[in-house]
Amino acid sequence: MDISPIGFVKTDVRDIPRHWSISDKEGVIVIEEKYKPGLKDIKAGQNIVVIFYFHKSPPFTEEHLIQVPPHRQEKLGVFSICSPVRPNPIGMSILEVTKVAGNTVHVKGLDMIDGTPVLDIKPFIEKKH
Amino acid sequence: MDISPIGFVKTDVRDIPRHWSISDKEGVIVIEEKYKPGLKDIKAGQNIVVIFYFHKSPPFTEEHLIQVPPHRQEKLGVFSICSPVRPNPIGMSILEVTKVAGNTVHVKGLDMIDGTPVLDIKPFIEKKH
Repeated sequence: MDISPIGFVKTDVRDIPRHWSISDKEGVIVIEEKYKPGLKDIKAGQNIVVIFYFHKSPPFTEEHLIQVPPHRQEKLGVFSICSPVRPNPIGMSILEVTKVAGNTVHVKGLDMIDGTPVLDIKPFIEKKH
Repeated sequence: MDISPIGFVKTDVRDIPRHWSISDKEGVIVIEEKYKPGLKDIKAGQNIVVIFYFHKSPPFTEEHLIQVPPHRQEKLGVFSICSPVRPNPIGMSILEVTKVAGNTVHVKGLDMIDGTPVLDIKPFIEKKH
């Protein structure tokens, strides 16, 4: 499967951010120049789905199938938690756009670290039923 | 980037399904046996995030940066639509679990075709603010 970054996260945040559903951290997604035209309909105030790559994760092994997440006391299956250590180290966050300028998308709710490779941006659409 | 399927979608649906936010199609995600323990906390009734690979998409070229989606009349940037033709052919659907049995997750709201490679399953968590 042929996957490569469309851009990278830039942020000053140095502590490990909390999950996007509660994070108020801000940062910027810098998109490759060649993909800039694809940003034209993204507007401040909307929520976007950001698919990214956990580039700092150690390789996944059998022992990671069950994990105890931070801030919880339970042993949970990897597909029920948001751990960066997963069979495919792919993350998904729903972020609020605060500004689009040139090839940059400014976002709030960040839970990625500086330098995180971004794989895709999609509109966030609410479930109808 | 080292990505490989954790499983595959199995469904009898032969027409192209509509977007997950309005789809009522049903199907099954069959997970590789080695990842089965990771399913232990997925329960019927919950919503899951399914990350998958658009394995039938043609290669992305510059002309796909702006597209007119079906059922709409507008030319939109690729990062504002859910087209399967994107720089990285990765899809994201939020599906309702109807049953978990062995290494299979039965889901409703399907918008993938039979044989779609699945890359990840995550819990769906609502945004808090």
